[in-house]
Amino acid sequence: MILQKVSEFGIAIDAMGGDYAPEQVVLGALASANYVKSRLYLVGNPERLSPLLGSSVPANLEVVASTQVVEMDDKPVDAIRKKKDSSMAVAIRLVSEGKAHAMVSAGNTGAATAASLLAWRQLPGVHRPAIATLMPSRGGHFLLLDAGASPDIDAENLVEFGLMGIAYAEAVMGRKKAKVHLLNIGEEPGKGNAFSKRAQDLLGQYEWFAGNIEGKDLFRADVDVVVCDAFVGNVVLKTAEGVAEFMVEMIREQVPTNPIAKLPYAPLRKLFAPIRKKMDYAEVGGSPLLGLNHLTFISHGRSNARAIECAIAAADNALQADVTGKIRSRMAELLPG
Amino acid sequence: MILQKVSEFGIAIDAMGGDYAPEQVVLGALASANYVKSRLYLVGNPERLSPLLGSSVPANLEVVASTQVVEMDDKPVDAIRKKKDSSMAVAIRLVSEGKAHAMVSAGNTGAATAASLLAWRQLPGVHRPAIATLMPSRGGHFLLLDAGASPDIDAENLVEFGLMGIAYAEAVMGRKKAKVHLLNIGEEPGKGNAFSKRAQDLLGQYEWFAGNIEGKDLFRADVDVVVCDAFVGNVVLKTAEGVAEFMVEMIREQVPTNPIAKLPYAPLRKLFAPIRKKMDYAEVGGSPLLGLNHLTFISHGRSNARAIECAIAAADNALQADVTGKIRSRMAELLPG
Repeated sequence: MILQKVSEFGIAIDAMGGDYAPEQVVLGALASANYVKSRLYLVGNPERLSPLLGSSVPANLEVVASTQVVEMDDKPVDAIRKKKDSSMAVAIRLVSEGKAHAMVSAGNTGAATAASLLAWRQLPGVHRPAIATLMPSRGGHFLLLDAGASPDIDAENLVEFGLMGIAYAEAVMGRKKAKVHLLNIGEEPGKGNAFSKRAQDLLGQYEWFAGNIEGKDLFRADVDVVVCDAFVGNVVLKTAEGVAEFMVEMIREQVPTNPIAKLPYAPLRKLFAPIRKKMDYAEVGGSPLLGLNHLTFISHGRSNARAIECAIAAADNALQADVTGKIRSRMAELLPG
Repeated sequence: MILQKVSEFGIAIDAMGGDYAPEQVVLGALASANYVKSRLYLVGNPERLSPLLGSSVPANLEVVASTQVVEMDDKPVDAIRKKKDSSMAVAIRLVSEGKAHAMVSAGNTGAATAASLLAWRQLPGVHRPAIATLMPSRGGHFLLLDAGASPDIDAENLVEFGLMGIAYAEAVMGRKKAKVHLLNIGEEPGKGNAFSKRAQDLLGQYEWFAGNIEGKDLFRADVDVVVCDAFVGNVVLKTAEGVAEFMVEMIREQVPTNPIAKLPYAPLRKLFAPIRKKMDYAEVGGSPLLGLNHLTFISHGRSNARAIECAIAAADNALQADVTGKIRSRMAELLPG
């Protein structure tokens, strides 16, 4: 028997959240348990979870019982008020009580965001939390925030998003002296709508601001962090997903279905494998909700086991890298001295 | 000699606008002159244009002299005030005077939009004009507006955009009983930010409103018209362009450069040809600025001859189909009766 060095961190997993919960969540948790440093708390209905776990439960994984489930179409406020024993609520409570230090959920994004905010509150200097999503790019990935947490913000909040993004990019993405671009329509200073013009004035005061960026340039190799409001961020994310799917489909439709006729197209499979891997949301797994006293990783509702595994691994990484501590330090720049 | 039936319409072409003007603009105008029904007015410096036109100028094309050029980085207000004899200003004047009935420009979009608005004013019931862009989709194309004309609008203006979009989709795109979607984050009613929630309340009063649509669903076959503000619209347009370029590049990078090793990939060329054609902005040519008393077609700054040709053909089509008259009728729905 190998004595595993276990870190002091714990990750609470909302085992009942997501379109393929609890099956795929349990499989993802089991896969990640082999290599993550954190202790895993799988929160859900034990009668549903036990058969899925089987007999040999990893030593760093335990089940925590909950009786309710937040549904995808529950209103966040109802989920919080009426389902105090949901897998999501119990997972958040494990973090509040200090047993776990981050939550992973593929459930209702609005509820996970609102409940995390209510329970954990913002870090000093942060007014609005942001979901930070890794998007594939020529440089590996760039970080887009806010991808959906805070829909109606002031331009001032983009400065906070910039600092949080830098902290994450430097701590987890291995970027040195990360720069922040403002997503805008037009590259030249002064372009945009009233909101983005004001944002340029505010961001322009910081040496880490790299100026405006247009949608067509997001995938350039030199982009680290891009800030925008949650509406625009979510539109970017979903439009990119839609275009990628549409293109793959158009290419696939060109290939004949007849087994002989399609022979010449065999090399295509090899060609697309690395691209599919690069564009696959499952490989990113989950997007951190940044700006609170603890971390929540939001996974796609359609998450399969691989996506959950990657989200847990990302949460583990973020805890090891002390992302929250680093955001706290960064935000000190904004606090009255 | 064939007696050509020439319509009473004229199209004024800003021959000096665009990254490849006047060469590509002249080539595009010449190509379109063979088949469009309208008379073409090529506006620019005659000394630059004459050598490009050569000796056999088509009967339905004439050069109109102008001395100045609006540069891509001119501020719209400066372009309008200080360059009253620019190719763009003269083209707009030809329309104002009734000689021409639409303008085509690949020049400074902001200037073309502002100058057209100032000269021609809005149709009754229209408060803000919108650039309507054809985006490729599983159903052929859908119409996205506003793609960049009016960045700071009220939710009320989206109703106008919806009616203008319907008129264009039915007159030019061959759609029957065109429906309008609101670009939003989340499909269910009530989702979104303050602006999109208000927009849903307003649009929800009309039977032509088909509800919210997310970025990932834009390319569905059943989408006719999608409305959003110009900031979001421009982000969608540019992000789609960026993703498509990035994907094509990733695929291309996988193909070996060695002539022997790349042999098995030869069928790829055949595979991509129709997709490239479908995604090529040049095939769409130009996007109409809708809501004014006359039409301006805005072409991409990078327009080549093919893009200019297609933009002129689109303007010709729109004139034949009486798009402006049809928008005028549609807008009557909003006017106090």
